[in-house]
Amino acid sequence: MDRVTPSLKDKIMTAEQAAKIIKSGDTIAVSGFTSVSYPKAVPKALSERKDVKDCTLIVGAAVGDEIDGALVRNGIISKRFGHQSNKDLRKAVNAGTVQFSDVHISCLPMNMNQKTGPAIDVAIVECTAVTDKGLYFGLSEGTADAAVRNAKKVIIEVNESLPMGLMEMHDVFNVGLPPKARIIPIKKPNDRIGHPYIKIPKRRIAGIVMTKDLEPGQKFKPGNDVTEQIGKNIVDFLKGEIAAGRLPENPGPIQSGVGSVGNAVLETLASSGFKGLSMYTEVMQDSALTLLDKGVLDFISTSSVALCDDTRERFFKDIDKYKDKIIIRPNEISNNPEVVRRLGVISLNTALECDIYGNVNSTHVCGTKMMNGIGGSCDFARASRISIFSTPSVAKNGAISSIVPMVSHVDQCEHDVDVIVTEYGVADLRWKTPKERAKLIIENCAHPDYRPMLQEYFDHAMEVSAGKHTPHDLTQALSWHQRLLDNGTMKED
Amino acid sequence: MDRVTPSLKDKIMTAEQAAKIIKSGDTIAVSGFTSVSYPKAVPKALSERKDVKDCTLIVGAAVGDEIDGALVRNGIISKRFGHQSNKDLRKAVNAGTVQFSDVHISCLPMNMNQKTGPAIDVAIVECTAVTDKGLYFGLSEGTADAAVRNAKKVIIEVNESLPMGLMEMHDVFNVGLPPKARIIPIKKPNDRIGHPYIKIPKRRIAGIVMTKDLEPGQKFKPGNDVTEQIGKNIVDFLKGEIAAGRLPENPGPIQSGVGSVGNAVLETLASSGFKGLSMYTEVMQDSALTLLDKGVLDFISTSSVALCDDTRERFFKDIDKYKDKIIIRPNEISNNPEVVRRLGVISLNTALECDIYGNVNSTHVCGTKMMNGIGGSCDFARASRISIFSTPSVAKNGAISSIVPMVSHVDQCEHDVDVIVTEYGVADLRWKTPKERAKLIIENCAHPDYRPMLQEYFDHAMEVSAGKHTPHDLTQALSWHQRLLDNGTMKED
Repeated sequence: MDRVTPSLKDKIMTAEQAAKIIKSGDTIAVSGFTSVSYPKAVPKALSERKDVKDCTLIVGAAVGDEIDGALVRNGIISKRFGHQSNKDLRKAVNAGTVQFSDVHISCLPMNMNQKTGPAIDVAIVECTAVTDKGLYFGLSEGTADAAVRNAKKVIIEVNESLPMGLMEMHDVFNVGLPPKARIIPIKKPNDRIGHPYIKIPKRRIAGIVMTKDLEPGQKFKPGNDVTEQIGKNIVDFLKGEIAAGRLPENPGPIQSGVGSVGNAVLETLASSGFKGLSMYTEVMQDSALTLLDKGVLDFISTSSVALCDDTRERFFKDIDKYKDKIIIRPNEISNNPEVVRRLGVISLNTALECDIYGNVNSTHVCGTKMMNGIGGSCDFARASRISIFSTPSVAKNGAISSIVPMVSHVDQCEHDVDVIVTEYGVADLRWKTPKERAKLIIENCAHPDYRPMLQEYFDHAMEVSAGKHTPHDLTQALSWHQRLLDNGTMKED
Repeated sequence: MDRVTPSLKDKIMTAEQAAKIIKSGDTIAVSGFTSVSYPKAVPKALSERKDVKDCTLIVGAAVGDEIDGALVRNGIISKRFGHQSNKDLRKAVNAGTVQFSDVHISCLPMNMNQKTGPAIDVAIVECTAVTDKGLYFGLSEGTADAAVRNAKKVIIEVNESLPMGLMEMHDVFNVGLPPKARIIPIKKPNDRIGHPYIKIPKRRIAGIVMTKDLEPGQKFKPGNDVTEQIGKNIVDFLKGEIAAGRLPENPGPIQSGVGSVGNAVLETLASSGFKGLSMYTEVMQDSALTLLDKGVLDFISTSSVALCDDTRERFFKDIDKYKDKIIIRPNEISNNPEVVRRLGVISLNTALECDIYGNVNSTHVCGTKMMNGIGGSCDFARASRISIFSTPSVAKNGAISSIVPMVSHVDQCEHDVDVIVTEYGVADLRWKTPKERAKLIIENCAHPDYRPMLQEYFDHAMEVSAGKHTPHDLTQALSWHQRLLDNGTMKED
């Protein structure tokens, strides 16, 4: 089968020709999620151009250095919407040279469809193939569907290194706009509700570029004793919920953020004898594929297949085996609170810091410096059956406590955080008052070095706020962060 | 028609007899929402008992003084879940004598159904009638359905002053538990999806008490120049969205929190010539009924019909006229993000304070003192098509600025707040960076007395945080609140 249907072959051009379609000041939306299946050839050609400036970039969530790195370093991008994880972009965001506006992952495509933001001039999307039916995306969907739907012109990179078997894995579904928005009829993670392709009229296809280069595989971040213990603590908690009858024997689909804690949880679930589990998540990593092979997982709904080089090779080779076990969905569906709540997803996300009352900061170091963005954590946390946030109890060799009196920025409010887990233990915050939460978090989760300091803060706050609902001393609530800024550690002399 | 079906007449008893069913340490769940259709007779009898202590109370949202006042003053309630608005309860919560745990309104019934909290010993619910089919609730649903579904014993107050016409207005729908949770098939505010009654086996009915007393009608809080101007600003903003094609001519159902701003918005919509609008909300007030009469609204989906005495009388008299124009739903449906997002609800909620980056505090005075609770604002704000928060620019005769450098507590994070409105103007925060938001909020929304102070904070924060993504000086971020605590004003000497 041809990668490009005959009727569209006249659209094929070089990356350099395609890059010329983009003008200064354009708003560009690209495919790509967790640096998987973003367009590479056209951005590379674009980054060579000296005459393009002040472009706005809209991305589902995080693309590779060819876009978030090179286009930023070369001054082509001055405004950026959506999650990011590139170090040069992060620097530019925190230096104010790139204007960055963050948004819940499930909301970005909705906002694009509702056309509340900048009009999209050009979409650039990586595809496996383009047939008479439409575009078949690659290893991720992200907001590629919304980009194609809303852009004036669409540039397609058809990557011939992507296996054709990927074509059947996608499930594109257009929710539509209120008052005619549709029910999302997913009742199980493996329900297919749409089409594996997205339609596009020929007149909006500005160019098709044939490519062969895959992006670099994900880098495996090995776990350590701490992440392993966090994983065990989470699985012990889940087993307790099952034993108490609050979760079914096969606990509801799992969502897991990127990182080694998610891997540790999956591996501990496997070694605990769980079988036939499923994931309803925005990204699947190597460990998930391994557990699919072992039958620990029997289905994965995701928006991105984010694998290391070796595992990706295995996945490509055996793709026929995985066709019925993985669905790749657009962000508007993978992260939609409607589905997350209905399925009873158990969400596992990482906190940058938590406070003693259960508020979570996922994004801002010391309240000011943006890390990667909010991602899908809010989409999942508020809608999930059990919202678990984990973090090692300390960072920077103990100079930073991940449990603080008051978080310096709130992404997840106290009502969206059911359980906090560190390597020291679990704080189950459900149905608890702020004061009860403080006790649990300090005693079960904080690092022993910081427990007395946290207890002292709480006791003092009880006193100065006369025991009010949420005790605080506003003159000291953020003093730990200030000490870190001043002295490089949250510890006192 | 009998209020109580013959087969259940043997369950009829006095309020005093029913109150004896409750024992010390029991967990009690009651009907009632915004102090409407909560049980009154049995709580009154219970409050006389000297031998009952340490009970836990679960309420959808806010009940009258017979419960949240008297049972607290008499030491019967020591723990309380769900939104509240009684002054004595608020005092007890902030004195630590009643343990209070707050929760999103849409989540409380879900949590009750999932049995993650205390087992419910007794439910007490006000009903219009009890037939062979089941219970027909009164002027509100709230979490009454979850209370009936999960309580070991159910006490029913059948209020003979409630018009029988109310029976047809209800629509009870049990979402169920994952992995078998159901799609909520509402596509328009007036879609009926369930039954007007809730089934209950006779063996779980512990008693039926016949009553006649209605709760006191709502107190009308008259608007003033400030709330009127806020209403006008909101309507001007909505008209602008329609003109720009970002909202349809008939903008999506409206949710409006309790209070005079909601009234002002509805009245301004009416005087602007809008017709055929609808509400998908948790509470309807007097003005909504008037607009239903005028055809400005043609349908209201709510969880509570909260009217002043006169209007309630008119509503009761003309109830046949309203039967097809109002549906009373349980909180799990009225506030469900699935439906709110699908319908494209425009949400109007009140902020206690906003910060210059768009975070909103809805609950905690100076970060410590609980006011009423989070209510349904989070349910609506994150899922709505446009999430609007309004507040007068100052409080306490100007001693308090509602716009502050950093809110002292975050209920709505920056990503859940689309638009902030005061009497001075509108800040449309969608797709804006934190720095752009600060400019808009300071210039358009802050009171002129506080604008220079806010600008000074922002400029200073830009400097000390070297222009990072969200500029702050953590030593000063909460200093306005501390000054208020110390000096009684946020203003500087």
